[in-house]
Amino acid sequence: MKKISSYERKQEYVRTIKLPEIGTIKNEYSDKKYLVECIFPEFTTICPKTHLPDFGSIRILYEPDKKIIELKSLKLYFVAFRNIGFFHENFTNRIMEDIIKAVEPCWIYIEAKLNNRGGIYTTVSRFWSREEKDNIEKAIKLFEGGNIPPQR
Amino acid sequence: MKKISSYERKQEYVRTIKLPEIGTIKNEYSDKKYLVECIFPEFTTICPKTHLPDFGSIRILYEPDKKIIELKSLKLYFVAFRNIGFFHENFTNRIMEDIIKAVEPCWIYIEAKLNNRGGIYTTVSRFWSREEKDNIEKAIKLFEGGNIPPQR
Amino acid sequence: MKKISSYERKQEYVRTIKLPEIGTIKNEYSDKKYLVECIFPEFTTICPKTHLPDFGSIRILYEPDKKIIELKSLKLYFVAFRNIGFFHENFTNRIMEDIIKAVEPCWIYIEAKLNNRGGIYTTVSRFWSREEKDNIEKAIKLFEGGNIPPQR
Amino acid sequence: MKKISSYERKQEYVRTIKLPEIGTIKNEYSDKKYLVECIFPEFTTICPKTHLPDFGSIRILYEPDKKIIELKSLKLYFVAFRNIGFFHENFTNRIMEDIIKAVEPCWIYIEAKLNNRGGIYTTVSRFWSREEKDNIEKAIKLFEGGNIPPQR
Amino acid sequence: MKKISSYERKQEYVRTIKLPEIGTIKNEYSDKKYLVECIFPEFTTICPKTHLPDFGSIRILYEPDKKIIELKSLKLYFVAFRNIGFFHENFTNRIMEDIIKAVEPCWIYIEAKLNNRGGIYTTVSRFWSREEKDNIEKAIKLFEGGNIPPQR
Amino acid sequence: MKKISSYERKQEYVRTIKLPEIGTIKNEYSDKKYLVECIFPEFTTICPKTHLPDFGSIRILYEPDKKIIELKSLKLYFVAFRNIGFFHENFTNRIMEDIIKAVEPCWIYIEAKLNNRGGIYTTVSRFWSREEKDNIEKAIKLFEGGNIPPQR
Amino acid sequence: MKKISSYERKQEYVRTIKLPEIGTIKNEYSDKKYLVECIFPEFTTICPKTHLPDFGSIRILYEPDKKIIELKSLKLYFVAFRNIGFFHENFTNRIMEDIIKAVEPCWIYIEAKLNNRGGIYTTVSRFWSREEKDNIEKAIKLFEGGNIPPQR
Amino acid sequence: MKKISSYERKQEYVRTIKLPEIGTIKNEYSDKKYLVECIFPEFTTICPKTHLPDFGSIRILYEPDKKIIELKSLKLYFVAFRNIGFFHENFTNRIMEDIIKAVEPCWIYIEAKLNNRGGIYTTVSRFWSREEKDNIEKAIKLFEGGNIPPQR
Amino acid sequence: MKKISSYERKQEYVRTIKLPEIGTIKNEYSDKKYLVECIFPEFTTICPKTHLPDFGSIRILYEPDKKIIELKSLKLYFVAFRNIGFFHENFTNRIMEDIIKAVEPCWIYIEAKLNNRGGIYTTVSRFWSREEKDNIEKAIKLFEGGNIPPQR
Amino acid sequence: MKKISSYERKQEYVRTIKLPEIGTIKNEYSDKKYLVECIFPEFTTICPKTHLPDFGSIRILYEPDKKIIELKSLKLYFVAFRNIGFFHENFTNRIMEDIIKAVEPCWIYIEAKLNNRGGIYTTVSRFWSREEKDNIEKAIKLFEGGNIPPQR
Repeated sequence: MKKISSYERKQEYVRTIKLPEIGTIKNEYSDKKYLVECIFPEFTTICPKTHLPDFGSIRILYEPDKKIIELKSLKLYFVAFRNIGFFHENFTNRIMEDIIKAVEPCWIYIEAKLNNRGGIYTTVSRFWSREEKDNIEKAIKLFEGGNIPPQR
Repeated sequence: MKKISSYERKQEYVRTIKLPEIGTIKNEYSDKKYLVECIFPEFTTICPKTHLPDFGSIRILYEPDKKIIELKSLKLYFVAFRNIGFFHENFTNRIMEDIIKAVEPCWIYIEAKLNNRGGIYTTVSRFWSREEKDNIEKAIKLFEGGNIPPQR
Repeated sequence: MKKISSYERKQEYVRTIKLPEIGTIKNEYSDKKYLVECIFPEFTTICPKTHLPDFGSIRILYEPDKKIIELKSLKLYFVAFRNIGFFHENFTNRIMEDIIKAVEPCWIYIEAKLNNRGGIYTTVSRFWSREEKDNIEKAIKLFEGGNIPPQR
Repeated sequence: MKKISSYERKQEYVRTIKLPEIGTIKNEYSDKKYLVECIFPEFTTICPKTHLPDFGSIRILYEPDKKIIELKSLKLYFVAFRNIGFFHENFTNRIMEDIIKAVEPCWIYIEAKLNNRGGIYTTVSRFWSREEKDNIEKAIKLFEGGNIPPQR
Repeated sequence: MKKISSYERKQEYVRTIKLPEIGTIKNEYSDKKYLVECIFPEFTTICPKTHLPDFGSIRILYEPDKKIIELKSLKLYFVAFRNIGFFHENFTNRIMEDIIKAVEPCWIYIEAKLNNRGGIYTTVSRFWSREEKDNIEKAIKLFEGGNIPPQR
Repeated sequence: MKKISSYERKQEYVRTIKLPEIGTIKNEYSDKKYLVECIFPEFTTICPKTHLPDFGSIRILYEPDKKIIELKSLKLYFVAFRNIGFFHENFTNRIMEDIIKAVEPCWIYIEAKLNNRGGIYTTVSRFWSREEKDNIEKAIKLFEGGNIPPQR
Repeated sequence: MKKISSYERKQEYVRTIKLPEIGTIKNEYSDKKYLVECIFPEFTTICPKTHLPDFGSIRILYEPDKKIIELKSLKLYFVAFRNIGFFHENFTNRIMEDIIKAVEPCWIYIEAKLNNRGGIYTTVSRFWSREEKDNIEKAIKLFEGGNIPPQR
Repeated sequence: MKKISSYERKQEYVRTIKLPEIGTIKNEYSDKKYLVECIFPEFTTICPKTHLPDFGSIRILYEPDKKIIELKSLKLYFVAFRNIGFFHENFTNRIMEDIIKAVEPCWIYIEAKLNNRGGIYTTVSRFWSREEKDNIEKAIKLFEGGNIPPQR
Repeated sequence: MKKISSYERKQEYVRTIKLPEIGTIKNEYSDKKYLVECIFPEFTTICPKTHLPDFGSIRILYEPDKKIIELKSLKLYFVAFRNIGFFHENFTNRIMEDIIKAVEPCWIYIEAKLNNRGGIYTTVSRFWSREEKDNIEKAIKLFEGGNIPPQR
Repeated sequence: MKKISSYERKQEYVRTIKLPEIGTIKNEYSDKKYLVECIFPEFTTICPKTHLPDFGSIRILYEPDKKIIELKSLKLYFVAFRNIGFFHENFTNRIMEDIIKAVEPCWIYIEAKLNNRGGIYTTVSRFWSREEKDNIEKAIKLFEGGNIPPQR
């Protein structure tokens, strides 16, 4: 149980590993300010320690600028995590970074809620805006109010 | 899977495509200030990527000025989306723009909650008022508190 | 479907049509300040467009001054809408005006929640006080918090 | 239906009719500040118009001073309304006045929620404090938050 | 029904009657600031008027200083009320005083929710802190938000 | 019943007893600000008084700095409490201290909710940040809003 | 507590005391077989022991023959129990007998669910049919399945 | 923990210990067959092992013959268990025997549901009829279907 | 309102109108007996009277023989109803017939639950097996037990 | 959309493809008759048509004979489906066959509930016993009663 898995040794690749591109669509209403929320309750990845699958739900809330997320590419992007292994905090931040890079939103909030693993439930969440960059107060506020309806 | 559907190529028409007129009725009480909320849980449209139907619920909250929305025409307007294909963000903004143009409300909030498509749940929401134009803070506030009762 | 029903042509009569008087009772405690809420979940009227019945719930919240609403007359007043046809916004405002005239309250809030009609759920709400007249902020606040328990 | 019942003619007696005394107990901790809430869900009285029984729930919230309400006498006091007939607003205020007189609290809030009568649900509520006397803002605040759990 | 029970005559003893000591444990982390909540849903005592048992739930919330409550002694302390008879307000305050004396907390909130007795539901609550002593505003705030989960 | 168990005499060891190390992982995104929540609903330990097992749920919420908690080691750390006996307040604070020492977070909140023991439900909670150290107001705020979903 | 109230001594009058007549209407469809259920959730009477009011709900289920119950007279009949005092079992059977005599149904089931009194909840139920007379098995079956929805 | 408490040694007295008489009332309708259910959710007694209180709910279902249970005496009978200590199975059977002796019902079913004690929930149930005496099949059937609504 | 729509006149085409083929897959386990249930909650079609859309849910339960339904083709088959107009009973039977013809199951049950239209909720259901052909008793049995979870 | 994926062409391999062995443990109580239920809510596999992941829950209910299922091997067996693609009916039967072969149970029931895919929810279920082999009636009965709690 003490042997280090190949994934475990490779966490630093989380920032550089090649993943499918998150496609975008021209925001036809970039002159308007509005909110978009996307919830993906079927996220699965590999645990870097045990090589066994992890499951969870990803919630994204953002204000688009010139571009909006193309959903099919977002799904394929999420599916790409199916057979690779990064820690929860790592892949949540990577997803955040990739969406920021691809979509260049005004601001964005992410919340990754993982299923029970070894008896522990973990949630990772982060808020970023173009002006303020990371804002932990806003992350706490959205995290507290931000119930992902489990039955959707 | 990479072929671009006819709808996909035509997203820029979202601002100009001809749609049924949203009828209005003279607001017999335009000297009064009051709130109107309309929820349409049977919205359906075509996905521009797959040409397959999407389903969702549209919620509108506004303060009327000289005119109020005529509901039958609103329904026929919504029904007109049944066989055309725009992205969620696009049709939500178009609906918003059309209602603003037709009804010229003091202010209006819209919320489009789409059913699971490809494992992703999407919601788009926006707030507009005559004085302030778009206001993202008010959109967030109404979005968080604005549960559409699923059983209505 | 384009023919205009007799009701539809007559919406301007909403301010003048004769309706049963809303009776009042002397407020024996007009030297006190207190709240009265009345909910009438069995409201029914005629749709001006289709001549078919509409159903809904009327909620009234007010602070009485010299008079209080006599409930039996309020019921008969509501029942009088059974066979006439005004748009939701119209009859809600007319009810508001009639109660203000009859009861002369310190302030009053009204909320009319209509059942699904043609797939649309509509709610109309308004707040009025003697000093401020209409106040849309207070209407929004009471509307958001003001759930009419559906089982009452 | 137009005949005036004997009760209806006698509403002005609401302030003077003799009712059982609300007993009090010496507040052994009058040097402390604390809250007492009493809910009586089996309140019944006679409708002044129809002579038929009305049913409802009375909720009282107060900060005691030198005296606290003796519950058995409160119950007998409530039971005394069983066979007399005052309008909702009238008996609610009378109860309030009697408790204020008997208990001399620092402040008190009352809420009378009546069962469906003629299709209408009525609630009457009032807040009073020694310094401010009636305060309608506090009544609204407690009324909105003050759900009487229906299953208690 | 008018005879005064032996308990009823003895309410003034509520401050002095000997009760089991509430044990304390040295707070090993008195250099830290933290919250402790204790809920005891099986509280029972004797009604001073009828000599029949009353039932309810006691909730305590406090910030410890040098000492923490020893739970077994707290239970035995609560059990000691089983066969003596004080009014709700009296025993709630006595419990509060005893815990303050034994535990010397930074601050403490208590809430005693009694079962239906004679058709009446009573709740007594109080907030105390070392600096402010009693604070009724904080008691109201905690009382409103402070649901004791009935299924725990 | 008065004999002091071996555990009871040894509470002062709570700060020094050797426990498994809480492992950490390099925070690959330490340049970002984000939230991590871990809930462990299967915590069990020994009651120092009765030597019988106690059960409960531990919730941790923190903002990582250079390190994140390694979950497997956290689980083994929690499991280590299975056969030792410290009071609720003691082990909650010890867990807090150990995580602070191992993870050196920007701030951290802990909440230990214990199952019914002898008819009493106990919860212990604490908030700490690097700048402010303990902050009881933030602990109260997170405690009130911080429902651990019982069905997770 | 041992003194016998005037009501308590008079239980044998339950079979003979004069009560308002239960009116009936000709069953225009007496050639058809069908079910009628009536629920009266605002039943109140006097406790023969304490002279204090009891509250409860009466449920009647029957198959009409030549006559059906006239509801206004049924209400007035129930209201007549408001100020007289019979034990639960007694008035339940008297109601049953009176309905059988007035309505001559094919069969009838009655269920009287009383509110908590002295900490005890009592329900009395009985089934009768013209051919079989009383049938306890059918009473048990209907009693088990026969939940009176508490919110009706 | 091995010392035997005074109660524990005296379980054989469960059949003979003197308890208050369960009063009965003449069944005015003993020529009818009907069901009576009594639920007492505030039952409390002493645990024979620990001398600490136990809590639970007693449900009785019976078909009366010549006599019915007098409820006030039933309550006082239940209250008498408050300060004596028999095992769950013992007092349930004793209650059953006492009711059979006092009321001589056609048949009777009893169900005692105890609150969590030491992490265990216990329920004891038994069915008896005059012809068959004990019938375990009927006990099982009523036990399975016989939920005591926890919120009554 | 009396004019007959083009769809209304064409109901007899329901048996012959060309629809997409329901694809099948070879049942690799046709030597085994098992159940397949498919629920399609996003069914929509056109009302033959009003030409407006109807919405509902289709549930299919069958025992496959040599073939199983290919789901993508089933979806496309359902989508084909989007823009044609048959009465509820008509399209439900047509779907049944088409699946029987394509899949040749051992038996099949269908249930079409339509959303509120004009205030009426309609459900159509049918059972067919190879040996018995239609069997109304089995349709009733499955219809009663067969709740389609509205949140799936 | 008509191209056949590599998985789609290979469905006949479902009976022969090599999968991890389902380990078993000697049933130490094979002389007893008892039930075992295993639910695996994190089942995921590849859709043979789209190569995209499917998600669902597998429920197994069986009566063991000489052997019981070893759970870790069962998990690894389920995980093996993660990256291969068989139709729902196919993998459900394969799982059934493999468990029958490995465990040789007295009887077994399986239920595979798949998440929404293309708007369709599919469930596959089968019952097998050593004496009767497949029994569709028992599959129906367990399927109807066999709700998989969605939160487990």
